[in-house]
Amino acid sequence: MGDAKFELFYWPGIPGRGEFVRLVLEEAGADWVDVGLLPEGKGGGAKAVMQLLGKGPVPAYAPPVLKVGDVVISQASNICSYLGERFGLVPQDEASRLHARQFQLTVADVVAEAHDTHHPVAVMKYFEDQKDAAKQRAEDFRATRIPKYLGYFESVLKANPHGGGTFLLGKDFSYPELALYQLVNGLRYAFPNAMRRIAPQVPGVMALRQRISERPRIAAYARSPRAQPFNEQGIFRHYPELDDLKSA
Amino acid sequence: MGDAKFELFYWPGIPGRGEFVRLVLEEAGADWVDVGLLPEGKGGGAKAVMQLLGKGPVPAYAPPVLKVGDVVISQASNICSYLGERFGLVPQDEASRLHARQFQLTVADVVAEAHDTHHPVAVMKYFEDQKDAAKQRAEDFRATRIPKYLGYFESVLKANPHGGGTFLLGKDFSYPELALYQLVNGLRYAFPNAMRRIAPQVPGVMALRQRISERPRIAAYARSPRAQPFNEQGIFRHYPELDDLKSA
Repeated sequence: MGDAKFELFYWPGIPGRGEFVRLVLEEAGADWVDVGLLPEGKGGGAKAVMQLLGKGPVPAYAPPVLKVGDVVISQASNICSYLGERFGLVPQDEASRLHARQFQLTVADVVAEAHDTHHPVAVMKYFEDQKDAAKQRAEDFRATRIPKYLGYFESVLKANPHGGGTFLLGKDFSYPELALYQLVNGLRYAFPNAMRRIAPQVPGVMALRQRISERPRIAAYARSPRAQPFNEQGIFRHYPELDDLKSA
Repeated sequence: MGDAKFELFYWPGIPGRGEFVRLVLEEAGADWVDVGLLPEGKGGGAKAVMQLLGKGPVPAYAPPVLKVGDVVISQASNICSYLGERFGLVPQDEASRLHARQFQLTVADVVAEAHDTHHPVAVMKYFEDQKDAAKQRAEDFRATRIPKYLGYFESVLKANPHGGGTFLLGKDFSYPELALYQLVNGLRYAFPNAMRRIAPQVPGVMALRQRISERPRIAAYARSPRAQPFNEQGIFRHYPELDDLKSA
């Protein structure tokens, strides 16, 4: 720690919202360290993440937090846009940057809704204590929200006059595609049955996810021990009772 | 329509997320038009808002949408940051801009949670059909979330080494203060009893809200017929059963 140019502070053990930042750092080939994954003895772990919160001249509300020299910034989408722009993962013109941020924020909206399927009542209460509301919310999320949001991104791919249905923005890859990739990964983990039903409605989005998974740096990261699997502590949780019934 | 430099597309009849954009436009003294408030015969109304969605080379998922010349951008926080930066309502340096966006996005997170107090299960279903879950979610929101979020902004005011407890950022007003002002207004409308209890814990935030309300352009806007009152169609809804019981 201390030598890397970018220090990410995020809870160890889950991909979570930190993963959106990690993917941009990985794709950029940035010199970075995942502080939460370092041993506590080396100034890492959840302890280091906790200690950073609420400190400094500009406190962060919650992780992920990125430290760049003396500057500490938070809000996952804000960090991703900063890094994406800094590393040239989006065209230079202002409109492209604004549209990339728009896409990133729209993915973040789906992420928040995905979280609320298992915690519709209170974030600090157990899933088991809000399961009835969770079932209702998850049903609505699967039936109307996932198709609407992914359908939106499908329409973005189709509307892009330069991308041939392939790119969200312009003629090339841009950083919000990493967010869309991670979103689809998370949705497939949490709602595998629903996503098998929905995927054929959004072929462009599914093809984009596949392409991103084959980008050399993303593929190498996914194979590395740094990449943490989804689990039932994170945003995207697989609870069978919140998914579609398995079709026969 | 057509002559103003900035055209805002947002549902007429509610402050909603559009209000965060309106406040920046008003404070900036921008040349703008609220398309949703124009008559349908003049190309306005909800119809014009609806027609814009999903159209153009970069579709918007949802209003608010801002049209600037040929460029159409969406996501309220994205629009506010764009306008705040364009009109100099934030210092020029990169760190300040990133921190302003961070604050804006944190306010947006509270706004989403405030919405979910009355629609914890499904956004398209009636409040009456999800009232039990709403009561539980609102209780948690009032007991833990409002104090935590407003407490965060209180800590930001205190931590600012230049602001003397007065400004979120640096030595002067910046655009996310407009968002915090609107957030507190909305919380006071929706949860008046809870906010009477919480306000003394966050005196800096409440003083900031008061100062913003006295800024000449904001005060003039609030008095104008353009400013639409809160109501039970918007994000911040006053349902007495979701507020604290009135103390004796």
